[in-house]
Amino acid sequence: MRIVVLAGGIGGARFLRGLKATLGIGAEDPQGGSSITVIGNTGDDITLFGLRICPDLDTVMYTLGGGINESQGWGRADETFTVRAELAAYGMEPQWFGLGDRDVATHIVRAQMMAAGYPLSAVTEALCDRWRPGVRLIPMTDDRVETHVVVEDEQGRRAIHFQEWWIRHRAALPAEAIVGVGVEEAKPAPGVLEAVAEADVVLLPPSNPVVSVGSILGVPGVREAVAAKTVVGVSPIIGGAPVRGMADACLSAIGVETSARAVAEHYGSELLDGWLVDETDAGAAVAGVEVRSRPLYMSDPEATAAIARAALDLAVELKERA
Amino acid sequence: MRIVVLAGGIGGARFLRGLKATLGIGAEDPQGGSSITVIGNTGDDITLFGLRICPDLDTVMYTLGGGINESQGWGRADETFTVRAELAAYGMEPQWFGLGDRDVATHIVRAQMMAAGYPLSAVTEALCDRWRPGVRLIPMTDDRVETHVVVEDEQGRRAIHFQEWWIRHRAALPAEAIVGVGVEEAKPAPGVLEAVAEADVVLLPPSNPVVSVGSILGVPGVREAVAAKTVVGVSPIIGGAPVRGMADACLSAIGVETSARAVAEHYGSELLDGWLVDETDAGAAVAGVEVRSRPLYMSDPEATAAIARAALDLAVELKERA
Repeated sequence: MRIVVLAGGIGGARFLRGLKATLGIGAEDPQGGSSITVIGNTGDDITLFGLRICPDLDTVMYTLGGGINESQGWGRADETFTVRAELAAYGMEPQWFGLGDRDVATHIVRAQMMAAGYPLSAVTEALCDRWRPGVRLIPMTDDRVETHVVVEDEQGRRAIHFQEWWIRHRAALPAEAIVGVGVEEAKPAPGVLEAVAEADVVLLPPSNPVVSVGSILGVPGVREAVAAKTVVGVSPIIGGAPVRGMADACLSAIGVETSARAVAEHYGSELLDGWLVDETDAGAAVAGVEVRSRPLYMSDPEATAAIARAALDLAVELKERA
Repeated sequence: MRIVVLAGGIGGARFLRGLKATLGIGAEDPQGGSSITVIGNTGDDITLFGLRICPDLDTVMYTLGGGINESQGWGRADETFTVRAELAAYGMEPQWFGLGDRDVATHIVRAQMMAAGYPLSAVTEALCDRWRPGVRLIPMTDDRVETHVVVEDEQGRRAIHFQEWWIRHRAALPAEAIVGVGVEEAKPAPGVLEAVAEADVVLLPPSNPVVSVGSILGVPGVREAVAAKTVVGVSPIIGGAPVRGMADACLSAIGVETSARAVAEHYGSELLDGWLVDETDAGAAVAGVEVRSRPLYMSDPEATAAIARAALDLAVELKERA
């Protein structure tokens, strides 16, 4: 079975690990032999200190490749922060980004390959040669797309990079709008539309529906291609609150209620075929979407694998019914 | 008294520390109030991993600023090598360069400032704002000059970067020629000719006479400006062998004998006024140059300060005599 997953960072990466587990895809499987293609969000990407940083791609790669900081969910295990401390000693800004020494090497390799003319998709493939994530990981686009957030405070109304809003301001600065700079002109990366076209099912993990899955669907052509498939999503909202992260701040910025039902309606029934919600939200009904409820906390690898299995089973059921 | 010193890496940096000590210039003196201007060699500079690395400038800066690895003579104290190990894990070349994590930050700041359009001299000044070396440190040129070494081995005859020859091959690959790529078109950095013109004396520390002091003197206009001054050099050769480093390999590449006398003759009496040699070389005589002998091993800070004092005293004596 060929499965396509549209993934953001931590939530997407953990869901993918559960999906691999339930499919019996081990760490040793070569990337090419995998039945999972991950289309990764690149809207969070940022250039800092001359390094090209792709937080979501790296979180997926490190998580599936065994290099992730487990308790934190992002960044490398056994990380040190010497370079960051030294940059701060030179007074170099920004100092709010948690740049680890192990992580720096990834960004150096990426920046160097991109400076040499390789597209991000080729760079990602090269990085995955080391990490062997057991899935095929493709960025949503090779073009530069950056999510900016329009905020207003004592410094006035302005657009700041998503990372600055998310990390520096902890998403506490009210967002008036969230804009994917460059997204209208972006083309899907090589392999994205092909993978979707060849997919048996498409899964939306409990990633941020606005700045993660929303960014991917915003790349011209992707939403239409995905909508033509059997699509099952896993709600990132449980009982009116995000499972983790600050998705509520993103949802309110685009005028969507923070509820499992509202997120499904935001995705829309022309895109979604099935929607998994938590037992807490068992009453949620969305016209034109098959809603099922089950425990959705990805509390440990087994629980996460069971959630992934439930999403996959629902997708297969809906595909057969169609 | 205004002193100009043409400095390479380790030997130059240690000599400078001795000179500061004998002049009573402490770590707390602001850079601007110093009476020492150091013209630093940039021929060893190299771009690796998108980072701009200036080994000699950094060795001077770290040594005088209290950040040097004392036993090694180059690189940062308490250094770690996480980034380097990770780059190697990605298979990124070259792996022969000893890039430390603390050091990486310096190169990131430099590369970023240069990418933003600042000349190396301005970058060096900015880096020294942190290190407060107690001297004014100016690169010999803001133009890109790279010392290449012509070698021949089983891979054929070719020019390789000085760093590759020095570090990877430990200068053991016979050098047919040493070439300063770009040096003919280079202009002295802002302040270089002015500092020399205003100097009371110019000192040549026991740096490599070919690839360090030689590179600096190779920048058009510098040799003439220096030659017009009272110049005293300290021999980097004691008893027919370099005090440290592999200067003999450089000297033989340009057909100069590895002896205190031959190095002085290579500099030439139109440049040199005085020449300090070790007691071992007390018999060395160079026409037109005042040769003095004394212990020249920079074995500890006190011995080094005494050598610097002797060089300075000889320079003052020769200047007064002139």
